[in-house]
Amino acid sequence: MSIIAANTALSQALHTALPQLMEHERMGEAEIRSRIDSGTLALLANPRHEGVTPTLIGQPARVKVNANIGTSPVSSDGAGELDKLRVAETAGADAVMDLSTAGDLDAIRLRMIKATALPLGTVPLYGLAQQCTDAGRDPAGWEASELLAEVAKQAEQGVDFMTLHCGLTRRGAELAQDGSREMGIVSRGGAILARWMRRTGQENPLLTHYDELLEICRVHNVVISLGDGLRPGAGSDAGDPAQWEEVLTLGVLARRAWAAGVQVMIEGPGHVPLHLVQAQIQGIKRATFGAPLYVLGPLVTDAAAGRDHLAGAIGGALAAQYGADFLCYLTPAEHLCLPDARDVHEGVLASRIAAQAAEASLGRPWAMERERTISSARNRLDWSAMAGTALDPCLVRQRSAGIEHGKECGMCGKFCAIRMVEPER
Amino acid sequence: MSIIAANTALSQALHTALPQLMEHERMGEAEIRSRIDSGTLALLANPRHEGVTPTLIGQPARVKVNANIGTSPVSSDGAGELDKLRVAETAGADAVMDLSTAGDLDAIRLRMIKATALPLGTVPLYGLAQQCTDAGRDPAGWEASELLAEVAKQAEQGVDFMTLHCGLTRRGAELAQDGSREMGIVSRGGAILARWMRRTGQENPLLTHYDELLEICRVHNVVISLGDGLRPGAGSDAGDPAQWEEVLTLGVLARRAWAAGVQVMIEGPGHVPLHLVQAQIQGIKRATFGAPLYVLGPLVTDAAAGRDHLAGAIGGALAAQYGADFLCYLTPAEHLCLPDARDVHEGVLASRIAAQAAEASLGRPWAMERERTISSARNRLDWSAMAGTALDPCLVRQRSAGIEHGKECGMCGKFCAIRMVEPER
Repeated sequence: MSIIAANTALSQALHTALPQLMEHERMGEAEIRSRIDSGTLALLANPRHEGVTPTLIGQPARVKVNANIGTSPVSSDGAGELDKLRVAETAGADAVMDLSTAGDLDAIRLRMIKATALPLGTVPLYGLAQQCTDAGRDPAGWEASELLAEVAKQAEQGVDFMTLHCGLTRRGAELAQDGSREMGIVSRGGAILARWMRRTGQENPLLTHYDELLEICRVHNVVISLGDGLRPGAGSDAGDPAQWEEVLTLGVLARRAWAAGVQVMIEGPGHVPLHLVQAQIQGIKRATFGAPLYVLGPLVTDAAAGRDHLAGAIGGALAAQYGADFLCYLTPAEHLCLPDARDVHEGVLASRIAAQAAEASLGRPWAMERERTISSARNRLDWSAMAGTALDPCLVRQRSAGIEHGKECGMCGKFCAIRMVEPER
Repeated sequence: MSIIAANTALSQALHTALPQLMEHERMGEAEIRSRIDSGTLALLANPRHEGVTPTLIGQPARVKVNANIGTSPVSSDGAGELDKLRVAETAGADAVMDLSTAGDLDAIRLRMIKATALPLGTVPLYGLAQQCTDAGRDPAGWEASELLAEVAKQAEQGVDFMTLHCGLTRRGAELAQDGSREMGIVSRGGAILARWMRRTGQENPLLTHYDELLEICRVHNVVISLGDGLRPGAGSDAGDPAQWEEVLTLGVLARRAWAAGVQVMIEGPGHVPLHLVQAQIQGIKRATFGAPLYVLGPLVTDAAAGRDHLAGAIGGALAAQYGADFLCYLTPAEHLCLPDARDVHEGVLASRIAAQAAEASLGRPWAMERERTISSARNRLDWSAMAGTALDPCLVRQRSAGIEHGKECGMCGKFCAIRMVEPER
């Protein structure tokens, strides 16, 4: 049975959304359906998320951008996160993840789901760990049954996609902690699971209970974002045995999900040196059978703290050029503190620039049109059209205020190169 | 005769600077000398620039970063530009160019040369065009003799490198204006020369008087930065016949310069789509016989106005990975207005991130050491060492203030992945 046929929630969401998806992605119905059925395209849309914008992730749909927001024990509150949600939407994010780890997580999550039409993702392990620490228990002191219940609850609440680190095996955790890595385990979810496995001596419950997870996700069309708990946290760790051990498992799990009528995405790195981005992206894509790939960066240097959105945009542009489908933003606050609203804005725009550069290099029509339109406006010194086509129109208007339309360049004034060679001047 | 032997000013500067150059670049004396003689390495150091830091540009020296500053008819003054000079130095620029086009240019230039130990570059055409417009003449209303006099004057003032668009031929200008380009000519110097050639009906005076220019530059060891007056101003123009016509001429002119004992660099694009950066860089490097390559960006999308430092960092990282030697920064103000001090800081840091990513990917020891040191500090939650190794220590200190050393992560607090998997916790 095909994924769509096996997944009633997906089938219904797709039926309703098809006209707008076909227009937005410039794809035909048959292609959308066959690609969803092959697993290479995933539709984010939990019917419980009222008013959600159904969003396709994967080839050959538009590259999408995700913004991570959420409270942390260090700072921020629920209201502040709603502000950031608004900023992410205005900046052009295609999806958001609520990664809250402090406060009343259910209340925060429900408010966000209600407040946004963007598909919303979570990492259910965070809620579980927080409940444990709040109750004075070990952050990995929960039972597998509690984890399944948390996933089911969030699915019913309307979460559209969930990061579940199902591919982190005991073998992978051992490989990541055998002393050969610079940074060990840097994924929060991965670290919680590694701690749980060490505490209990058992295999990852997300793996041993995978069939039950699949059934929950199928019923609500929750897209499983198969997490990379062993993603490299330093460039020198990229592509090591621990990372690949997990990727291989993710590929196997993707096929099991598809067979059960469940959509998945694969999460990717992480910290990756510039010259290894192509090998990483193409390697992961192949090993996971073309499943939509959702990357965090990648960061092409470890030394850009304070401007990791920029290091991530370099890696993100290359990653999308080589086949990544979904760019998780990094903000200037990455590695340092919780992002503020300004960081959220900068992070989304950095990823959108990366996506635009990649899509232009791939000749995608919407990207080529944007390139052509803004260059043509620039050539006419048409500042209003330039702003309207730029990725951040407000910023362009603000910084070009006062320039006379059609008369001059804001940088060079009378030495404008374009005017210099006009025959009539 | 070798370049060094033919160029007394260079020979003397090199002799004095050798110990520090060998240490900084981790190269032996013989390699430095042979590479300068082959033209693949250039030493910026005009003996008239008192206290200048002699700086090597080219393979296999460190990738360097240049910051463009300078007044414009639209805004800024000489004092403001000195502030920007300070900011560029603090941010870690390796060289600056004074691109002033308003005010008393000689006074501004002399103040800058005196104020900085960084090699200073100029575009002598700007001063000439400004003198003409100030006198009510056409900006291309000067004589060839005035241009040579301007170059000689600036060489005597201590300018270390000059952009001279010697390779812009009438044929090239025609190709760029035959209607096949989106953006025509976008280089200010190129546009002034194209206007001059159209006005006079004569060939580019920088080309017809090239031997005289070489003699001026040899005497003062001014490195000629062979300008790309026909660089693509839109991604769709990259690699067109006009651009290559000029590149081929630049290669011929590089060899003529070397034969005359004069050092050169080649200026490169510009706007280049992501998938063409490698072909551009490797193609230009080959066609110009391995001369040091000085790139502006390249910008991998035309649509990032307001954040072109970011689009330029994506292209710059790739360019440096494929052989570019000298990255001219782009600031967030590019295409919109004159950069302010904050823009200068952001521009330099963006280019330094690009250079670090490229050098790490190439395995350059200084870059690998930085990557290792900061990741090791991150793994120990050693915030002081992280800041000390980051490319922008002040920013890291500012945004990580209040985090307890060795205790926690500033983003995740008690959910720090690193602490989560510590056995003792």
